[in-house]
Amino acid sequence: MPRSQPPTLSETRGLTLITTEHTRPVVGIDIGGTKTAASVLTPDGEVGATAQLPTERGTEGVTKTVLQALDLLAQQSDCAVSDFGAIGIGLPGQVNQATGEVKHAHNLDMQSFALGHHLETLTGLSVRLENDVTAAALGTAFLQGIDGTLAYLNLGTGLAAGIVIDGKPLRGVGGLAGEIGHFALAPHQRLCPCGQRGCLETFASGSALIKYWPGGGEHPGWRLAAAAANDEPGAREALDLLIEGAVEAIRLLGITLAPDHVVIGGGLRMVGAPLIEGIRGRLTDLQNSSEFLVGFGLPHRLQVLPEGSPAATVGAALLVRT
Amino acid sequence: MPRSQPPTLSETRGLTLITTEHTRPVVGIDIGGTKTAASVLTPDGEVGATAQLPTERGTEGVTKTVLQALDLLAQQSDCAVSDFGAIGIGLPGQVNQATGEVKHAHNLDMQSFALGHHLETLTGLSVRLENDVTAAALGTAFLQGIDGTLAYLNLGTGLAAGIVIDGKPLRGVGGLAGEIGHFALAPHQRLCPCGQRGCLETFASGSALIKYWPGGGEHPGWRLAAAAANDEPGAREALDLLIEGAVEAIRLLGITLAPDHVVIGGGLRMVGAPLIEGIRGRLTDLQNSSEFLVGFGLPHRLQVLPEGSPAATVGAALLVRT
Repeated sequence: MPRSQPPTLSETRGLTLITTEHTRPVVGIDIGGTKTAASVLTPDGEVGATAQLPTERGTEGVTKTVLQALDLLAQQSDCAVSDFGAIGIGLPGQVNQATGEVKHAHNLDMQSFALGHHLETLTGLSVRLENDVTAAALGTAFLQGIDGTLAYLNLGTGLAAGIVIDGKPLRGVGGLAGEIGHFALAPHQRLCPCGQRGCLETFASGSALIKYWPGGGEHPGWRLAAAAANDEPGAREALDLLIEGAVEAIRLLGITLAPDHVVIGGGLRMVGAPLIEGIRGRLTDLQNSSEFLVGFGLPHRLQVLPEGSPAATVGAALLVRT
Repeated sequence: MPRSQPPTLSETRGLTLITTEHTRPVVGIDIGGTKTAASVLTPDGEVGATAQLPTERGTEGVTKTVLQALDLLAQQSDCAVSDFGAIGIGLPGQVNQATGEVKHAHNLDMQSFALGHHLETLTGLSVRLENDVTAAALGTAFLQGIDGTLAYLNLGTGLAAGIVIDGKPLRGVGGLAGEIGHFALAPHQRLCPCGQRGCLETFASGSALIKYWPGGGEHPGWRLAAAAANDEPGAREALDLLIEGAVEAIRLLGITLAPDHVVIGGGLRMVGAPLIEGIRGRLTDLQNSSEFLVGFGLPHRLQVLPEGSPAATVGAALLVRT
């Protein structure tokens, strides 16, 4: 159930996991490969100040970006950085929550770095890190008022899912739960950087579009719908593969979790109706082929994260309250 | 971590879900297509009396079987049926927990029946129903002392998984979570009764063996390993397909959940080493093809439910304590 206003903490199921001891606003930061977004979450669960800035890469660059984001939020909030209660950060990489260490954050040019500890030393604030898709899933469940099981499918530079069950993120061993972009489907033989062939991510992701659809330029998602409508070379095939990969991902999440809600997020969702209705149509076809699949109700459980939703930063902020 | 003794309630994480108000022993019953097993779980979480009897099918037959099982347990426990605190029942079908209604229990010749309500009226005890695989997963987590996420793969008449996260079963919409036997893999074109083609269950289940391996007789699992070793017609292929389906199931559960433990249960696990080492070998090959997959550690997370384990009945009994 989408809602026009973010719920306050006391309205959501997530509350059971959120201590009420926090009386200071907390900060959520979503560090992407090119852009970083940040927002303040008030003790009442309202979104306060927000900021956006370009990401600088590497350990020094990411550190600098976070400090800049904090300064921007403090200025807007008319307070000092030290007035914030804590910092939650979502970023594309493998996160060891116990040590605050980040690994394999290729898009940030950061292979292995104790970012959490480093930022705690610099700011004096407690810092918690999380995989960005898991953080966005948590924020989505909170903002959309979702109870039960949420399967959040992120179609961005990569393809991955975040799973939230009764307000609690499912992390899995090494934070690897939901890494379904590397589910290898035999018929698709493209080599994946992970070493396998035919991973969903090799044909249904922003990086796949950039690599295999030369007509798309650097931001292929912005052009894909129009290019397919205009029969530009390769565009229809690229869109079809994107739809197919998303459908496979949802089918996989569906049969494993039987989720109450499936929400599509990530930059590629802005391809819009040709993508979303393509996915819904294929899910409906599948359902029509099998009475058994009707019980999952996937076509009508499918939603799209609204444009401009602060789910990623809110989810990161919720990390320090869970 | 396997343990030689079942833990008491106070030792397990499951405890957080188990009220301590129960001071009477409860009954867990696992109704299978041919056999029904039952056991008493004491307030201390120990297994007391146990019973096994043939299943009579149909609504009348199943009701009679449950009442017989209760009588047997009461006799052995030197008490009356009314001394038991409650009854938990696992059975192969779709269960509506709110109404106590069972649907699509084909193996029990029971299409739609309010079994829970019916048994409550007859016994005066509170009755809770659950899908049998989910119940077995819950019992496995309890008996093996498993924390975190358990993916329990049942290789029986059908193929399905039960998922337990921090001691709590994941049911999903309509109790459909874990029904991965109906994940359709394109290369395998066998028609499934569910309406799809190439479902895992059409080539990696007892029903598939009976249908496609004529040499196996009525209990093909008992003969498969020897028949494959002796190069009997079709046996090696049947075993290979069983291994392949189990590997696909574990790969799917693995990438979605990144589970701490994967346990194989169900009657077909008794095919033994050729099956289990076949699965482990294939998982190891996959891991060797991709550094990314190493993080999931599936080959070493794989266990087999011990022969004779009362996981199914204990899980059913735990239902009435959760």
